[in-house]
Amino acid sequence: MNKITLLISCRDTQGIIASVTRFIYKKNGNIIYIDQHVDMEHRVFFMRLESQFVEFPGSLEDFKNEFGHRIAQQYGMSWEIHTDKPQPQMAIFVSRYDHCLYDLLGRYNSGELHVTIPFIISNHTDLKPVADSFGIPFHHIPVGPDNKEEAEKKQLYLLQEAGVDFIVLARYMQIVSEKLINHYPHKIINIHHSFLPAFPGAKPYHSAFKRGVKIIGATSHYVTEELDAGPIIEQDITRVTHAHSIEDLVMKGRDLEKIVLARAVKLHISRKVMAHNNKTIVFS
Amino acid sequence: MNKITLLISCRDTQGIIASVTRFIYKKNGNIIYIDQHVDMEHRVFFMRLESQFVEFPGSLEDFKNEFGHRIAQQYGMSWEIHTDKPQPQMAIFVSRYDHCLYDLLGRYNSGELHVTIPFIISNHTDLKPVADSFGIPFHHIPVGPDNKEEAEKKQLYLLQEAGVDFIVLARYMQIVSEKLINHYPHKIINIHHSFLPAFPGAKPYHSAFKRGVKIIGATSHYVTEELDAGPIIEQDITRVTHAHSIEDLVMKGRDLEKIVLARAVKLHISRKVMAHNNKTIVFS
Amino acid sequence: MNKITLLISCRDTQGIIASVTRFIYKKNGNIIYIDQHVDMEHRVFFMRLESQFVEFPGSLEDFKNEFGHRIAQQYGMSWEIHTDKPQPQMAIFVSRYDHCLYDLLGRYNSGELHVTIPFIISNHTDLKPVADSFGIPFHHIPVGPDNKEEAEKKQLYLLQEAGVDFIVLARYMQIVSEKLINHYPHKIINIHHSFLPAFPGAKPYHSAFKRGVKIIGATSHYVTEELDAGPIIEQDITRVTHAHSIEDLVMKGRDLEKIVLARAVKLHISRKVMAHNNKTIVFS
Amino acid sequence: MNKITLLISCRDTQGIIASVTRFIYKKNGNIIYIDQHVDMEHRVFFMRLESQFVEFPGSLEDFKNEFGHRIAQQYGMSWEIHTDKPQPQMAIFVSRYDHCLYDLLGRYNSGELHVTIPFIISNHTDLKPVADSFGIPFHHIPVGPDNKEEAEKKQLYLLQEAGVDFIVLARYMQIVSEKLINHYPHKIINIHHSFLPAFPGAKPYHSAFKRGVKIIGATSHYVTEELDAGPIIEQDITRVTHAHSIEDLVMKGRDLEKIVLARAVKLHISRKVMAHNNKTIVFS
Repeated sequence: MNKITLLISCRDTQGIIASVTRFIYKKNGNIIYIDQHVDMEHRVFFMRLESQFVEFPGSLEDFKNEFGHRIAQQYGMSWEIHTDKPQPQMAIFVSRYDHCLYDLLGRYNSGELHVTIPFIISNHTDLKPVADSFGIPFHHIPVGPDNKEEAEKKQLYLLQEAGVDFIVLARYMQIVSEKLINHYPHKIINIHHSFLPAFPGAKPYHSAFKRGVKIIGATSHYVTEELDAGPIIEQDITRVTHAHSIEDLVMKGRDLEKIVLARAVKLHISRKVMAHNNKTIVFS
Repeated sequence: MNKITLLISCRDTQGIIASVTRFIYKKNGNIIYIDQHVDMEHRVFFMRLESQFVEFPGSLEDFKNEFGHRIAQQYGMSWEIHTDKPQPQMAIFVSRYDHCLYDLLGRYNSGELHVTIPFIISNHTDLKPVADSFGIPFHHIPVGPDNKEEAEKKQLYLLQEAGVDFIVLARYMQIVSEKLINHYPHKIINIHHSFLPAFPGAKPYHSAFKRGVKIIGATSHYVTEELDAGPIIEQDITRVTHAHSIEDLVMKGRDLEKIVLARAVKLHISRKVMAHNNKTIVFS
Repeated sequence: MNKITLLISCRDTQGIIASVTRFIYKKNGNIIYIDQHVDMEHRVFFMRLESQFVEFPGSLEDFKNEFGHRIAQQYGMSWEIHTDKPQPQMAIFVSRYDHCLYDLLGRYNSGELHVTIPFIISNHTDLKPVADSFGIPFHHIPVGPDNKEEAEKKQLYLLQEAGVDFIVLARYMQIVSEKLINHYPHKIINIHHSFLPAFPGAKPYHSAFKRGVKIIGATSHYVTEELDAGPIIEQDITRVTHAHSIEDLVMKGRDLEKIVLARAVKLHISRKVMAHNNKTIVFS
Repeated sequence: MNKITLLISCRDTQGIIASVTRFIYKKNGNIIYIDQHVDMEHRVFFMRLESQFVEFPGSLEDFKNEFGHRIAQQYGMSWEIHTDKPQPQMAIFVSRYDHCLYDLLGRYNSGELHVTIPFIISNHTDLKPVADSFGIPFHHIPVGPDNKEEAEKKQLYLLQEAGVDFIVLARYMQIVSEKLINHYPHKIINIHHSFLPAFPGAKPYHSAFKRGVKIIGATSHYVTEELDAGPIIEQDITRVTHAHSIEDLVMKGRDLEKIVLARAVKLHISRKVMAHNNKTIVFS
């Protein structure tokens, strides 16, 4: 154990950074990254810090306990300390579109994503061959008007049994239930195929075409109960013209969707995203 | 007279391009630019063509008459033929923000905009010194709750007296009346400080901040009766982060607004924009 | 047979568009796309035209013959007429990096690329499993200092036997021989991992890091004898900061490389690229 | 006096952040911004910190002395402490192009740039009216083959007399002398009209046109002795096509140049740029 990542939020006041960095220093840690943000409106302080230890002083558990008692309590902090191991468990939900899935699995395969993928869940069987070609278990859980609750139970069972840490909806075309969202608050990452808040809901490319926009976008956000209204993690755009048909928009959009989703997933994996007040702080 | 620009729209059918280009050829014209678009949904054909004539065959009036009778009538065309001279008359409306005005007048001064600016109209006096420093007449026409009609009359009088061809709202903070819009259909260019259709109406940067978007935009469009819902001419965006305050967004947005507005104005001046069905065709 | 794509280049003169479009019209063709460009410096005219025929008048061979004799000869045109079928044969060359290969094959699989891929050639065996998972033949042709000529012979034999139309170098880390280039002039598409002409040759991300640029790029171009100096088809960029290591640049660059290469390949497939004077005309 | 900005660089070691933040805390300062960077290759630590003091403890001089003796000395720091007042003195050098000058003065006028502009220096008289219209002194110092040294003496005299802190070359078309550079190390900001390191030197738009690039750029950098090779502060790009003439590139480039230069100037003013090893650290 050599490196920890510390995430903190608390009411803004004087001396927080000094206290935390002094604590790290006294433990012989070398801070290699520190970034902070103050939400001036609500007076909330956020910090992300990475520290290396040549030799870690005692157990991680002791370290956490001491930090909790000596620092966190004093400032009323919400905090997390992460280490590199074990890697987070990331489940993928898909339906029929394969571009985001190929992109994620290609990155996974080449070692770009520091996660384990225990399985892929889909309401269709179309993408089973893709999962197979990458050697990843694939669970087909159909979702229809009268088996929603049962489907969700199966999903939750699989997720919990595998100790899944977060979920990526890689163009999963079903609305995720409130129950699942509550089990994974700010831990379900969706890709929406528009530049939110423009064109939420279904068929955004059709709406973009009808409105005659000159730029289309894609938005990756945490899933909350309100559809396509959760905290935005990442967005990007591409230019279109009057000459592009709806099919062209869909095709150009696919390239955006996969890149934007991958960026959001990588930010989440490296613990660079904090959600607060339905917005995100994305550390550099 | 050496160069004409021809704009055409009509029901799509076979032979239009052949007929038009043959007509030009028979008049000894050399086509230096042709672009066309077919709205497949509504079966409408659009074309923009530039042609040079070493020696123009007869008067422009004759040319237009002949084109009208021999070509346009046959296909039921809406059409316009423009020459470089005289330059269009462009009026500018402003309120208090100066960045778009400085940008437009700087371009005007350096010869980038092929127009004449007969005057600037404002509901405030703040920007009179800017107009003065560029030597452009400035008319102060206050607009209040009980003089709207009178103000509009004054505006229209000035516009018509000067033979104004089109109007640029360079951050003019008043809603333009239906009457003015009807006098200048698709000839009033507005800059809206958001990535439409997201955040129409007032205070879009406040809304963008609240929603936590990662990209902000600006949109230039033709003014129609429905607020911020007219045909989009040009849009652009810039990245923002959680660290940007509303004031930062406003400042970053200013750079977008002036560039996007200038691009739209230049497209309009060079007759590259055709509006149809509340969308634009923007020729390259 | 319903649609043809016509590409033309010739000395610029009056009447070309009129002659060509009239020819199409007389054959009962409906022009659905026309775009042209004049290289003013060298007085060369370029045109791309798509036309639909409800019923094609006689054989394609007859059509070509007639066009050749009645139109092309008169203007001294270089010209090509393409139909949708058969699809072009596209060979892919790779070495060890898999991101461009995954991206291309994912698109191929989902029907986005209108080509047939007869095989993949590599100087290494690393990516054979990827080829296998997509069911595409994989030929391992090692390239070393003393078997270059032999390797090239094998490549050419395979390419010609399969009737390959064009070649995509999807991060193929060998210099392609003059002989191969002469067999496929402006038909070998490379992706270079820098914003050319900055940083040609090896290790561009290292050079970009050293120079401290704030933006990195990728460039897709046709291969010519001079290294990384062929006609540019497409480029794109992404922002970087002082905080990015060389490894970060490499990783961010991968996303650029695959998207830029895919765009160039799609432009080539849809016959939208004409090369001339070591530059490209890329029709919209 | 309420706010200080602290810039530090030194050899990387443990405890720096803890020491500095503790020092601030003990002085009753509230840290509102902290960002750091470690150059891993050369083991150099950089930090930028902003702190607010409800009541400043003693004089700024005392504060600096104490920081110097108690903290900076221990770690062998290079360091600067800045306050908001007085505002830096910024001189502008121009030649004949006016777009960057209009842009800078427009921003200055609207309060966006927190500087004082004591004067504008030019080797031509063309832009005197612009300076006049903004009420800024304008010095015409012609530069020819046989008065270079004399011209430079005049420039230096004016700069030093006015206590100029940094210089902006707003499309100043003369090479700045070594002597001037040595007086203002990393304090002369230039805008180069290409995406460096591509196309350094004269006529970059001509070179870009000839090479057939699909994207052009602009680069703002600190001036060093080697032409166009100093530390890059900011870059941006815009797309071009085969249809753009050199004049089009020049015109599109102007919009880039002014925006990129303004961003670099604003970063410099807010002390967000540190130069090191011919690269910049640009804090967020």
